Amino acid sequence: MVNSPVVNMYPLSNYTFGTKEPKMEKDTSVADRLARMKVNYMKEGMRTSVEGILLVQEHNHPHILLLQIGNTFCKLPGGRLKPGENEIEGLRRKLCIKLAANSPSFQPNWQIGECVAIWWRPNFETVMYPYCPPHITKPKECKKLFLVHLSEREYFAVPKNLKLLAVPLFELYDNVQRYGPVISTIPQQLSRFQFNMVSS
Amino acid sequence: MVNSPVVNMYPLSNYTFGTKEPKMEKDTSVADRLARMKVNYMKEGMRTSVEGILLVQEHNHPHILLLQIGNTFCKLPGGRLKPGENEIEGLRRKLCIKLAANSPSFQPNWQIGECVAIWWRPNFETVMYPYCPPHITKPKECKKLFLVHLSEREYFAVPKNLKLLAVPLFELYDNVQRYGPVISTIPQQLSRFQFNMVSS
Repeated sequence: MVNSPVVNMYPLSNYTFGTKEPKMEKDTSVADRLARMKVNYMKEGMRTSVEGILLVQEHNHPHILLLQIGNTFCKLPGGRLKPGENEIEGLRRKLCIKLAANSPSFQPNWQIGECVAIWWRPNFETVMYPYCPPHITKPKECKKLFLVHLSEREYFAVPKNLKLLAVPLFELYDNVQRYGPVISTIPQQLSRFQFNMVSS
Repeated sequence: MVNSPVVNMYPLSNYTFGTKEPKMEKDTSVADRLARMKVNYMKEGMRTSVEGILLVQEHNHPHILLLQIGNTFCKLPGGRLKPGENEIEGLRRKLCIKLAANSPSFQPNWQIGECVAIWWRPNFETVMYPYCPPHITKPKECKKLFLVHLSEREYFAVPKNLKLLAVPLFELYDNVQRYGPVISTIPQQLSRFQFNMVSS
């Protein structure tokens, strides 16, 4: 039989959650965001974003940690790389900004693992595809999703304007209306892994 | 930067397609199929199925080879393993039944690669999930999808009652109505690979 790669998963109750100062969104509307993307593209070329899939278990089922902004919009922790920045280092930097305490002695041990999906933005629009569409020679953004293997226990500090949610795979699956095309198909991308549910 | 695994992809025109005797479906209705699944489960326990994702390129875009039955229903080549059969050997056997000429000297060189998705059937029903749902201790089927790395040139023999189609990723993506949940999310599962488009 073929061995699937193993992901250890610890109970949500193993992790401690505090708060820290708010991290406001840079843009207040989708139009602003796309306009800023265009300005940055002129200066720096294609944007590369990196996002982390942080897994915990509850009731023996995998849950993904999502940051909720306001009452509805959810996103993975992560963000845009600086021009030329290494993907793994950049994702660690972004995870610290989003989820680590300000004190350097409380930094989680971010073990960045497998790349599980890559999405492409062909135009300065909201729509992305899991491939670079034919005839698109200059995509505007490439977004990469990585598994982040969490240690058995960690302390996370969540910006006060955000909520950190542990959302079960069965809630994400087939729920594009609530979570969008990128997050709602994470269950399919994780299906090839073998989940090792470690008790606390 | 993180290196994605590479998949070489050759033009569709590199491959030659002939026909062979029809391979009829064992069941004539969904109800028959689920009833037969139940009988087999009583005898042999959980069914394991394996299916192959065979990739070719056209116009510099990846296409997947699908078998079409009748005018609408499409499926990946593959099928059910015998009890205790090795997954890789079993997939090779099924690919030969579906796509190889009867002459042993014309057998394609099936290089079975990465497992890209695993789907679970919790009950004797058509619905499957990309995880084993909570509280399901005895799933009825586990279906594994593997990349099949094709050689530069091959001869395929297609059963006369089936049509072999090369369907572009952009046609599959977000098209659950036409292709179902398993096939329509293959583009997301392949997005982490780097496609090396080899000219003929």
